[in-house]
Amino acid sequence: MLKVAIIGGSGYTGGELLRLLEQHPSVKITAVTSERSKGKTVSSLFPNIKSCRLVFEPLKIKSVAKKADLFFLCLPHKASQEAVAYLHKAGKKVIDLSADYRLKEKTVYEKWYETRHKFPGLLKKAVYGLPELYREKIVNALIIANPGCYPTGAILGLAPIIGKRFICTDSIIVDSKSGLSGAGRNPVQSLMFSEANESVKAYAVTTHRHTPEIEQELSMLLGTKKKIKIIFTPHLIPMDRGILSTVYVRLKSKVSQSYVHKIYKDFYSKEPFVRVLEKGSYPATKAVKGSNYCDVSVFVDKRNPKKQSLIIVSVIDNLLKGASGQAVHNMNIMYGFDETAGLSSPSHFP
Amino acid sequence: MLKVAIIGGSGYTGGELLRLLEQHPSVKITAVTSERSKGKTVSSLFPNIKSCRLVFEPLKIKSVAKKADLFFLCLPHKASQEAVAYLHKAGKKVIDLSADYRLKEKTVYEKWYETRHKFPGLLKKAVYGLPELYREKIVNALIIANPGCYPTGAILGLAPIIGKRFICTDSIIVDSKSGLSGAGRNPVQSLMFSEANESVKAYAVTTHRHTPEIEQELSMLLGTKKKIKIIFTPHLIPMDRGILSTVYVRLKSKVSQSYVHKIYKDFYSKEPFVRVLEKGSYPATKAVKGSNYCDVSVFVDKRNPKKQSLIIVSVIDNLLKGASGQAVHNMNIMYGFDETAGLSSPSHFP
Amino acid sequence: MLKVAIIGGSGYTGGELLRLLEQHPSVKITAVTSERSKGKTVSSLFPNIKSCRLVFEPLKIKSVAKKADLFFLCLPHKASQEAVAYLHKAGKKVIDLSADYRLKEKTVYEKWYETRHKFPGLLKKAVYGLPELYREKIVNALIIANPGCYPTGAILGLAPIIGKRFICTDSIIVDSKSGLSGAGRNPVQSLMFSEANESVKAYAVTTHRHTPEIEQELSMLLGTKKKIKIIFTPHLIPMDRGILSTVYVRLKSKVSQSYVHKIYKDFYSKEPFVRVLEKGSYPATKAVKGSNYCDVSVFVDKRNPKKQSLIIVSVIDNLLKGASGQAVHNMNIMYGFDETAGLSSPSHFP
Amino acid sequence: MLKVAIIGGSGYTGGELLRLLEQHPSVKITAVTSERSKGKTVSSLFPNIKSCRLVFEPLKIKSVAKKADLFFLCLPHKASQEAVAYLHKAGKKVIDLSADYRLKEKTVYEKWYETRHKFPGLLKKAVYGLPELYREKIVNALIIANPGCYPTGAILGLAPIIGKRFICTDSIIVDSKSGLSGAGRNPVQSLMFSEANESVKAYAVTTHRHTPEIEQELSMLLGTKKKIKIIFTPHLIPMDRGILSTVYVRLKSKVSQSYVHKIYKDFYSKEPFVRVLEKGSYPATKAVKGSNYCDVSVFVDKRNPKKQSLIIVSVIDNLLKGASGQAVHNMNIMYGFDETAGLSSPSHFP
Repeated sequence: MLKVAIIGGSGYTGGELLRLLEQHPSVKITAVTSERSKGKTVSSLFPNIKSCRLVFEPLKIKSVAKKADLFFLCLPHKASQEAVAYLHKAGKKVIDLSADYRLKEKTVYEKWYETRHKFPGLLKKAVYGLPELYREKIVNALIIANPGCYPTGAILGLAPIIGKRFICTDSIIVDSKSGLSGAGRNPVQSLMFSEANESVKAYAVTTHRHTPEIEQELSMLLGTKKKIKIIFTPHLIPMDRGILSTVYVRLKSKVSQSYVHKIYKDFYSKEPFVRVLEKGSYPATKAVKGSNYCDVSVFVDKRNPKKQSLIIVSVIDNLLKGASGQAVHNMNIMYGFDETAGLSSPSHFP
Repeated sequence: MLKVAIIGGSGYTGGELLRLLEQHPSVKITAVTSERSKGKTVSSLFPNIKSCRLVFEPLKIKSVAKKADLFFLCLPHKASQEAVAYLHKAGKKVIDLSADYRLKEKTVYEKWYETRHKFPGLLKKAVYGLPELYREKIVNALIIANPGCYPTGAILGLAPIIGKRFICTDSIIVDSKSGLSGAGRNPVQSLMFSEANESVKAYAVTTHRHTPEIEQELSMLLGTKKKIKIIFTPHLIPMDRGILSTVYVRLKSKVSQSYVHKIYKDFYSKEPFVRVLEKGSYPATKAVKGSNYCDVSVFVDKRNPKKQSLIIVSVIDNLLKGASGQAVHNMNIMYGFDETAGLSSPSHFP
Repeated sequence: MLKVAIIGGSGYTGGELLRLLEQHPSVKITAVTSERSKGKTVSSLFPNIKSCRLVFEPLKIKSVAKKADLFFLCLPHKASQEAVAYLHKAGKKVIDLSADYRLKEKTVYEKWYETRHKFPGLLKKAVYGLPELYREKIVNALIIANPGCYPTGAILGLAPIIGKRFICTDSIIVDSKSGLSGAGRNPVQSLMFSEANESVKAYAVTTHRHTPEIEQELSMLLGTKKKIKIIFTPHLIPMDRGILSTVYVRLKSKVSQSYVHKIYKDFYSKEPFVRVLEKGSYPATKAVKGSNYCDVSVFVDKRNPKKQSLIIVSVIDNLLKGASGQAVHNMNIMYGFDETAGLSSPSHFP
Repeated sequence: MLKVAIIGGSGYTGGELLRLLEQHPSVKITAVTSERSKGKTVSSLFPNIKSCRLVFEPLKIKSVAKKADLFFLCLPHKASQEAVAYLHKAGKKVIDLSADYRLKEKTVYEKWYETRHKFPGLLKKAVYGLPELYREKIVNALIIANPGCYPTGAILGLAPIIGKRFICTDSIIVDSKSGLSGAGRNPVQSLMFSEANESVKAYAVTTHRHTPEIEQELSMLLGTKKKIKIIFTPHLIPMDRGILSTVYVRLKSKVSQSYVHKIYKDFYSKEPFVRVLEKGSYPATKAVKGSNYCDVSVFVDKRNPKKQSLIIVSVIDNLLKGASGQAVHNMNIMYGFDETAGLSSPSHFP
């Protein structure tokens, strides 16, 4: 049994890791930390997993480091920098769910997160943990930078066609709609039921920190020196979980619906967690809630004779494929477990 | 007191007309029809207006036509064509909430609605009932084609800048998120609580019938021969009411946030129902729910050095500013009532 | 125009008072206070009433006291004690939405609210502001103790029959289901959308502070020395507004459905805000949301041959009939305004 | 591998059976029928289980009967009568999720379901499939009458104390709050999102068909000739899944909280799916959503000196412990599988 620990486990991503890892056939959770909830039982914070016997311990990195071989970090960005560095130096493997090691360029990180990155050397070592793109690197990774929730849905929606000559890469728009668990578990007035229910709003227009992450990965996929710039607009909608991203891509030359659909089908043909829907089907977040799936559809808009467009719609569960499920997937790849181990339960409906 | 009748009053737009018109200081509802609910009391279908003493009568157009001077039509498209024509011939004024008289070109209507338009002459007489654009024509209109819900939010978001030289008109994208009352009151599996709750999905991608309506009005505003083509993607989100439209417009030349904001402020400075928010504020549908307001914000995205963009966000209550409230506003203009009569209640919060 | 002020106006009841009083034909809001939000505009906290030009001022009771003739107090319990006393001494009228002056017996207050009551003399002067029971006293009241939300629904459900010989008064059960706005606007983890959505739970079983308030009023209605004890169980359900109370009353002797229904109809025949539904109709909170109505139905359960029971179901909007709407109703009675002034808008549906 | 078939599988309970049985390590689904959806793929009706390759076939009982050894029946009541009888005669085992074989007395069934029962002999053979009460009988059962959703929560809440001398059995009240999936998947106006959202209502007061089922099982537990009569009031609240039942029981003699709590702890000490919460904890449906758990708490109300009461709160997921999960649990017992096989996933949170 692989010994794993969860650092900063009292939030929603921590809770989902606890649930998934407790069910996992090949791992044992040996520690879970939380500064705020130290001394409390896991079951008092997560009423769904009442049988869990773990108790939150304070984050004393030296002693915790000895307790496991693989560490899942659910710390706030900035706080994660140091913890990753320490654990890495101690010879441990790390899957970091914060944003601290996702952006390859130190300057980009420092501009968007408004803090210094003290470990630029580790930035290079860290592997961006999107299995559909980096499976081979993940196998031997020591540090996984687990992707953000919005980037996961956006990048999976674009990966099959981003390198194709028939698209324009200078006018991509990602319009995302997220449930409220994506905003975290800390009490904030705007996230209270009575404020967020029966409402939809955009936020962080042109300024959301997931923007450079999406751009970095699209630019990598493009494989040229060109730096892709996108427009990314997140919205909050009144539901617990799920992100739907509607992605708009202008076409340079005409393509048929069938042709594009086949590109997607082929690209994801061997992926266990990406389901390209049949032509004309619409993804709904309800179909992936509680599961690690990403459902994708692609549509060609031929109405504008001069400039046709692709409209791609992808859905994920932000806490699973967008966070903790993907982290477990990464672990499965790193340790040679069955890729779907602990992740095979489909969503319940309704 | 102006005598008004509501034709097809058992759905959500009919119910809101009943509520608004019962409270209106200058009108009296003399008849309300419903084929399906004939003989039933209004209060049995609308538990909110229990004091209403009206009973649904069957739609016998000849006898109903005698009962009022102004008719609000909430019939399905196609059925509305004939009723409008009859009432117009009988010398009555009509506010038609269906789509039958919104599209000026017969061929466009026939293509999108897959049915013949028998009264092309009336198409020309009908005035598109968006007060912010057509107030002067509405004053003397005999037939009002009351705008669709999505077009209202989209057009109000674009009207201030659509004729400006600094924008590109060939790549406008409207991404809209709607509550479920917009889909009507007829029982359909996909609209049931358990199916629609905790989910978001896109629908009618590239094929929604409000697309040509938005395009027609934007082209009119442009004032050239150019026919604007847009991409319009509607989504359903789990709430009763409200539409948020996120509109993307590429810029030809650079503009400042302040400059564009002032254009919006000036454009709507005298409008009683459009509120341009302060710079940096985000509209939320909750703030307009149950009211006739449209809240608008505009953002400049300067990240893409070659091509800057505007991102405009507008919110309305789909049943009020997007349907029945706008219909009452049109009536107020037609009859010289105070424009806000019967419409002055703000939303309750939360 | 009556000059009114709102003390502690940044929460949900304060917001509803601002909305209602701004629309009221006979009053002018001259001040609104909030310690936490001092200096902020009302419209920044309540996006629904953007046209409101008021700014929150700090609560300096001496200077605020000069600004109005009637004061609405939305302070936390305990804090309200002093403010009421000061304003009363200054010759002002007060409608107190806190619990501080609702319980007639000092000792009962002190036990349930775990704090001393410093003004027992004022407790006697204060009138319990439930117009259906105390209209005549309200006319001349100087201090109104505005009823709690749960008590309003429970008492209105029981008032018509509490004094009847055919019921048992020693086994009354009130099982209430409330939307989340009743729990206030302060950020608390358990009230966050992701925690409260898709869930129902009971809370404060046998210990909720509204229990003695309901018991006091039922005992008063009974008119004997007997002190009624009830079981009261509140629940939180995932919606913004509304309370449904299901009340169980054992019968001493058999009565018919029609007989009891007529008692309710007669009792409330002249009340503008209580609607006794037709036999067999079920109240729903949606029908009263945003309005000052209380809808009531009564059912006789004849299945238990030895002991029949009444099941009474009442619904209110907790922020209107359960708080701010009732406060405005009380003001209307105190100042001789039309009782429905500012409160005549029905709920919108859906 | 046990061969199982699902008869009437296009509704919510059918969908959950498909999901659970596809994941079950010891069974193979060999057929699923649906008259309405015959010819359609399972994945087209249940977007969560897209990998399922099954197609709905019409219900031709003769040919379907040959395909499996165990049959799950999700037919409407009345229709299930015949199908159970046929399959039983053909030597097959049956788990019937309808109400047709739950009531032991033919006359009671015929009165409440307003139809004749043609197979009174089978009524006696059928075992009420509540494992916590009838585990031993279930082992050898040929026909399982799978309990209703409300009865499951109510009976589990009462079973530990129904036979105790310290309670009154003539005044039990069960007040239940259910999510909307309990009302089925057929399109009905009152179940549409816009009608049911943001509302709570009682329904079927004194007349719900689950009443005699609860009464039968409580009377059985009591073990005397006395027939218990209860008051049962169901309510619909705006969420997908979950039932919370608040149960009121008068006490004949005083008991302490600790004493009663221990009775519950002991009664369920070996049950894999019933969790008695710690003293003072409140069950929430969110903690059991998507799982087969039933969480229970018990409170003693000592406020009424003459008559104390117990207040018991239980929560289940209506589609799992209240339907399909319990059916799988029954199968596990019948075939000697691990009782938690296929049912071990906890709820996800939030």
